[in-house]
Amino acid sequence: MYKYLDNYSQLDGVKKMTLKELYDFSEEIRHYLIEKVSKNGGHLASNLGVVELTLSLLNIFDVEEDKIVWDVGHQSYVYKLLTGRKECFDTLRKFGGLSGFPKRCESKYDYFETGHSSTSISAALGLARARDILNEKSNVIAVIGDGALTGGMALEALNDIGYNKTNMIIVLNDNQMSISENVGGISNVLNGLRVDPNYNRIKEDITSTLNKIYFGKEIANSLGKIKDGIRNLLVPGQFFEELGIKYFGPIDGHDIKQLSKVLGQAKKIKGPVLIHALTLKGKGYDHAEENPSTFHGIGPFNLESGKIKEIKKETYSKVFGKTMVDLGKNHENLVAITAAMPDGTGLKEFSQVYKDRFFDVGIAEQHATTLAAGMASGGLKPVFAVYSTFLQRAYDQIIHDICLQKLPVILAIDRAGIVGEDGETHQGLFDLSYLTHIPNLTIMTPRCTKDLQFMLEWAIEQNEPIAIRYPRGGDNYINDIPLCLNINKGKWQTVCKGEKVVIIALGDMVNKAYALRDKLKNVGIDPTIVNALFVKPLDTVMLDYFIENDYKIITIEDNYTIGGFGAYVLNYTNNKNKNIKVLNLGYKDEFVTHGEVEILYKLNKLDENGIFKSIVSFV
Amino acid sequence: MYKYLDNYSQLDGVKKMTLKELYDFSEEIRHYLIEKVSKNGGHLASNLGVVELTLSLLNIFDVEEDKIVWDVGHQSYVYKLLTGRKECFDTLRKFGGLSGFPKRCESKYDYFETGHSSTSISAALGLARARDILNEKSNVIAVIGDGALTGGMALEALNDIGYNKTNMIIVLNDNQMSISENVGGISNVLNGLRVDPNYNRIKEDITSTLNKIYFGKEIANSLGKIKDGIRNLLVPGQFFEELGIKYFGPIDGHDIKQLSKVLGQAKKIKGPVLIHALTLKGKGYDHAEENPSTFHGIGPFNLESGKIKEIKKETYSKVFGKTMVDLGKNHENLVAITAAMPDGTGLKEFSQVYKDRFFDVGIAEQHATTLAAGMASGGLKPVFAVYSTFLQRAYDQIIHDICLQKLPVILAIDRAGIVGEDGETHQGLFDLSYLTHIPNLTIMTPRCTKDLQFMLEWAIEQNEPIAIRYPRGGDNYINDIPLCLNINKGKWQTVCKGEKVVIIALGDMVNKAYALRDKLKNVGIDPTIVNALFVKPLDTVMLDYFIENDYKIITIEDNYTIGGFGAYVLNYTNNKNKNIKVLNLGYKDEFVTHGEVEILYKLNKLDENGIFKSIVSFV
Repeated sequence: MYKYLDNYSQLDGVKKMTLKELYDFSEEIRHYLIEKVSKNGGHLASNLGVVELTLSLLNIFDVEEDKIVWDVGHQSYVYKLLTGRKECFDTLRKFGGLSGFPKRCESKYDYFETGHSSTSISAALGLARARDILNEKSNVIAVIGDGALTGGMALEALNDIGYNKTNMIIVLNDNQMSISENVGGISNVLNGLRVDPNYNRIKEDITSTLNKIYFGKEIANSLGKIKDGIRNLLVPGQFFEELGIKYFGPIDGHDIKQLSKVLGQAKKIKGPVLIHALTLKGKGYDHAEENPSTFHGIGPFNLESGKIKEIKKETYSKVFGKTMVDLGKNHENLVAITAAMPDGTGLKEFSQVYKDRFFDVGIAEQHATTLAAGMASGGLKPVFAVYSTFLQRAYDQIIHDICLQKLPVILAIDRAGIVGEDGETHQGLFDLSYLTHIPNLTIMTPRCTKDLQFMLEWAIEQNEPIAIRYPRGGDNYINDIPLCLNINKGKWQTVCKGEKVVIIALGDMVNKAYALRDKLKNVGIDPTIVNALFVKPLDTVMLDYFIENDYKIITIEDNYTIGGFGAYVLNYTNNKNKNIKVLNLGYKDEFVTHGEVEILYKLNKLDENGIFKSIVSFV
Repeated sequence: MYKYLDNYSQLDGVKKMTLKELYDFSEEIRHYLIEKVSKNGGHLASNLGVVELTLSLLNIFDVEEDKIVWDVGHQSYVYKLLTGRKECFDTLRKFGGLSGFPKRCESKYDYFETGHSSTSISAALGLARARDILNEKSNVIAVIGDGALTGGMALEALNDIGYNKTNMIIVLNDNQMSISENVGGISNVLNGLRVDPNYNRIKEDITSTLNKIYFGKEIANSLGKIKDGIRNLLVPGQFFEELGIKYFGPIDGHDIKQLSKVLGQAKKIKGPVLIHALTLKGKGYDHAEENPSTFHGIGPFNLESGKIKEIKKETYSKVFGKTMVDLGKNHENLVAITAAMPDGTGLKEFSQVYKDRFFDVGIAEQHATTLAAGMASGGLKPVFAVYSTFLQRAYDQIIHDICLQKLPVILAIDRAGIVGEDGETHQGLFDLSYLTHIPNLTIMTPRCTKDLQFMLEWAIEQNEPIAIRYPRGGDNYINDIPLCLNINKGKWQTVCKGEKVVIIALGDMVNKAYALRDKLKNVGIDPTIVNALFVKPLDTVMLDYFIENDYKIITIEDNYTIGGFGAYVLNYTNNKNKNIKVLNLGYKDEFVTHGEVEILYKLNKLDENGIFKSIVSFV
């Protein structure tokens, strides 16, 4: 089927190919990726953008010892294919199969694991310094997108590298996109470079220009201050040069010949080097080129039409977005903030309807959080919509800037709980554990998308910090359960009254518990079921009643049990100094791998059957 | 006593003064600050550096509506003095008195609270955008040090501001210092600006130069690309200009006339402006000018000699530092990392003895953490020494980069527990709550400085992530208790055996519990006391014994009870499904204010008497 790919002998294969063969190979890889991802879903556009770049890296470097760190890591499919993982490529992102991100347990060629944005320069710098201290020889390369460059820790790392002159190479994979379009002054800097008239000249004769600039440095130095100004006319990348990092580029990131040349040059240079490669996200697949944001992370789709096969049900993100648009009408002080995720969080429509009240700050969760705090202290009602796993970046800012000053910021925490295929780095299983212990914070969880709407409507009327966490995907809700039309702070909803066993559940776990009612009755357990719409504060009136009346208490949450909701309930019941039995269901103290959501629930005994068994054995 | 200060009528006072009077006033303020801080301790050097800057700000802006955000905030003493808080200045940093940082509850002129570094630009941007959306009129000013500019979130904010052109002013208070000397490419950028030959020329006639540059822009634009190069010859600050922020400077930050002029200009300019002011940390007090790092945050000292009055006892930081130097000899792969705190963390000597294995990354906890992970994956044994409160910044990186890959990084967490005078923003009361729920992490707490040494010696031999948390200050340890000479993972130390009440305590709380022994015996309680040197993993063998034998269990920790050590113990005992009584002592769910440590312990019932009473009432 695939001329080159099927016969590819690992690693040295690329080095033996002619330029023509490399281009043919890249066509093949592209075709292979589109075919596979159209069937199984995955990250497509970013991988199509780095086919030639990956081939060039393997052409110039020897990954037996040279270490490549892929920022974010969802663009590592080509690398995986070419480092011995083609045979199991069909298992990508499936339970027990290949991860969608670099994984050290998967291959010795994955030197550092990634998932969240902007970590690669720090990690690569660590590898480079280890090499130097241990007197080893290797090249260390960080491949980072222009979007990831807006993340604060990437800039912290650039600041360190430029100063200490560690030998390493940064490949800036500039596709003018994060997941969505890029924002920020740094993207303007890069824009300036892209349109630089020198681009074409450097393209034509990159070697001689680089020689002039870098190896003729001694001569240039003698010109003193004037040189810097003149060099700025000749050399783009002043921004990086000022930080102490040598800048090469911009070059065409799909031109293997040029890429290989520059990578080869960079290898020889002492100190940190940044290669600015321009790539096209989705390159080679028309539908992806046109809608790179849609084809960023995608489910199975039709190869010809580019149409997504997924059934589009009402997701929490969508309902969040719609509610925000509605609320914007009567609340002129409502503003929305995203950290580079206007689509994923559902804020797209809000951004169009209320242009002046929408702020995309780039991949910058820390700044987003404190910006929200500043806005709130200035009289606005900011909503920061963010994925649970990414909000981990702003833990300090939630404490220090929002909660300490008790500012009315709403954290809309999407993708909370298990997310599935993206795996360990993306599961939203920590948020209740990192939020519950923060003073002054109210935390809510909706059982269904409708309740999310009511919670937002309620939250916007309050004058304090509120976090609302909700899962990826859509409703599994049960119609029998009434909606939360009247929300009162710290008041839970009794879904059904039974005997002296109470299941206090969060979010979708309420539906799961409710669905188990008959099955439980069949074994003699008639549970009271409570929808704990407030994780914090607890409904102490209700809890006191359960305690006074010797209920057995079961908590269920889509979060780690350590430090989570159940632990918080236990903390309360324990203080009552009565002999109350409490069972906390949630995830045990391990990272949760990638795979289909239902498999992961089962594995962690949080599927209906697992919950059923735990309850029976407890009661 | 003080001619101007005593008669200072708030706010408009400054505006009415002549230049001569302003300089006399600044001398007075300086004298006042030195006198007060020499008696009560506090942040001195940074405040001496901003006397003229603060006067200039009050001269040009009207703080009734103009909003100043002080980054970090420990340099706000002058501002506090001049905004109605002179009468209670003697209470500074004392319990119930003025905070050492801006506090909204303290004054309406404190528009946003700070404490941690690098938040001011984000917060000020929030205030500025709120102003614009609510159609209000005010100037918003962020005052940020050059050290704070290395923090990632400050760069995230610059990226946002430059792009969106929000009207606001950033005053870069450049004293070439963080708490210690500055590092990083950005400090090189600023160095380049400092020595710029234009500095003096601009100094001489700043107005005309600025007019030429900014108001003659239309003419300059017509020159096209060439202009940028030429402008770079004339105008420093290309770095900021490239990000889209107008740059003014560098100017003398002690020259009130010049500062006032430039601030006045900046007020009129549309879009974001950065004023680069050069100041001298400790200005006007010889001892502080010579040792700004010593006089950064300082206890009472002798005004004449500059000698610190504090008794120098063996602190945890010092023992940490000494042990690191010792370990460095036989462990060639040991490296140390600090985020701008070589002195505070005790790493100064290590940095001198092992120059190549010491890394100060600037105020960049996120980068420091992932750098450590990278180093560990490359074969080094990195120790990141950091204050508990600042490590909050790296919560995500601890999970995502260290623990997920189970990399052998040692987190040496200093200033854990209550820290006292620095207050809410600096208490180290969250770490056990944000660390205990992270999979793969071992957490230890030493009871005394000697045990810290043994723990470090043990930790360096392990091959997994380990956090060791220890308090500010020195030993209160009791000689009767044996040292932890033999450490085994997850094994606690039985300090004394009593009857069926066990006190499981952490760190110095072990000493406190031990000291209560006789008093407890007098009321009929003979406690078993356990030194829980491992917070995680728990000593389940010991716990099982206590559970099997129906012990009453008391945990004591210098951390919040929610999500902390006690909660973790409770989580374990509860799973045993026996009727075990557990009492968790720690902080309740509120921020803990500033004040003397002993007062704060008492307030939170964690002094000996408080602990005694809780135990008696529980048993």
